[in-house]
Amino acid sequence: MCSGKIHTGLLVVSYAAYLLLGAIVFRALEKNAETEQKRAVIRMKEAFLQNFAHLTVADVEQFVKNLTDAVQKGLYPVGNESQTELSNWDLSNSFFFVGSLVSTIGYGTQCPKTAAGQIFCLFFASFGIPLTIIFLHWVGKMLSLLCERLGRWLYEKGMKKKKIKFLTLLFFLVTGILVFLCLPSLVFQVTEGWSYSEGIYFAFITLSTIGFGDYVVDEKGNGEEPSFWKMDGWE
Amino acid sequence: MCSGKIHTGLLVVSYAAYLLLGAIVFRALEKNAETEQKRAVIRMKEAFLQNFAHLTVADVEQFVKNLTDAVQKGLYPVGNESQTELSNWDLSNSFFFVGSLVSTIGYGTQCPKTAAGQIFCLFFASFGIPLTIIFLHWVGKMLSLLCERLGRWLYEKGMKKKKIKFLTLLFFLVTGILVFLCLPSLVFQVTEGWSYSEGIYFAFITLSTIGFGDYVVDEKGNGEEPSFWKMDGWE
Repeated sequence: MCSGKIHTGLLVVSYAAYLLLGAIVFRALEKNAETEQKRAVIRMKEAFLQNFAHLTVADVEQFVKNLTDAVQKGLYPVGNESQTELSNWDLSNSFFFVGSLVSTIGYGTQCPKTAAGQIFCLFFASFGIPLTIIFLHWVGKMLSLLCERLGRWLYEKGMKKKKIKFLTLLFFLVTGILVFLCLPSLVFQVTEGWSYSEGIYFAFITLSTIGFGDYVVDEKGNGEEPSFWKMDGWE
Repeated sequence: MCSGKIHTGLLVVSYAAYLLLGAIVFRALEKNAETEQKRAVIRMKEAFLQNFAHLTVADVEQFVKNLTDAVQKGLYPVGNESQTELSNWDLSNSFFFVGSLVSTIGYGTQCPKTAAGQIFCLFFASFGIPLTIIFLHWVGKMLSLLCERLGRWLYEKGMKKKKIKFLTLLFFLVTGILVFLCLPSLVFQVTEGWSYSEGIYFAFITLSTIGFGDYVVDEKGNGEEPSFWKMDGWE
């Protein structure tokens, strides 16, 4: 029993350490490259603005094209150069990315763009995905232990075995649907401003590890866009 | 053996039919909504252009914000209203989407945006993902049969069992890496204009079902952007 606890502790700690290490490496590899790209987009926007008086339809179309490219690469070309400080690759965002990587959800709202980051991504995921499977297997084992205990408790209360089997199954099914689908959806209605069906859709797309990335929980919460969206202008 | 072949045939046909059916339903649900959204973006762009002479910095910033929102929703706000005919939801794109859904890759370059499409997505994936697992299980069985035959052939040639085991394992490992990582990467260099490491990265992100969607094979091929990107202006 004691060695089992040590084993469990080691698994949890090493899994957390692996994710944290990955987050730190990705941050180191990606953050500067991202800042450079952001600056380039903002310079492009400023050049467009300086050329104001002599703009042609073709200029606007080219501007729209450049912006589209930037957004598709995961940049938010809104605001001025000082706003480049807001990074997709600070530690918490980097950790979120690593989680979406090893779980194979892969939202894709942020991805490594440097060659070094992409190569590290392959190696990190090659070990991280099996590690996640082991970790989730352990979580499953804990849940089935809980299920067993519940069954034993009901048996001691004098319940029939068949009824116990049905009841524990029902208990886990209902709890699972409540905890992983219905409850999160209610929370997202408040924190993200999504409709209830959008919340269910997001929970399902995440749990199934499809991970489109069309809905992603915003760390800033409250369903509002980051404050730099709301700039009225720049110097 | 004969009933095995019928079973195999049924599996392949029903899997293909399921995907095709899904593609048709998604197209029906999503195409009109997408066209509406595209028109709205292009009207927004035209309004921006008509206001040319009196633009302020705030106007440009709002314009950039609107465009960013549109691109993040998967729209390409380039070109004029006649280009709204190019749809993410024609049959081939819809089929590609369905494939990325049931395999849980979930590139996310196109996602259902209507409530009906999102709800259908849940039900379709709930059956489609297990069906895909069954289908891939069958593919695996076929491969292991092939492996067995190769072993028997070598055994008849007088090779030792241990050596055969090693050789067949090596054969499948090397073939797998060649066919699923190295060869596609070479093809992507030509068709998509990616570097070799980008091709390996894309193949890995797809095979592991992470599916960020930062690199996606372009159906039009040749690494070029769709022709409507290249518009010099619009009427």
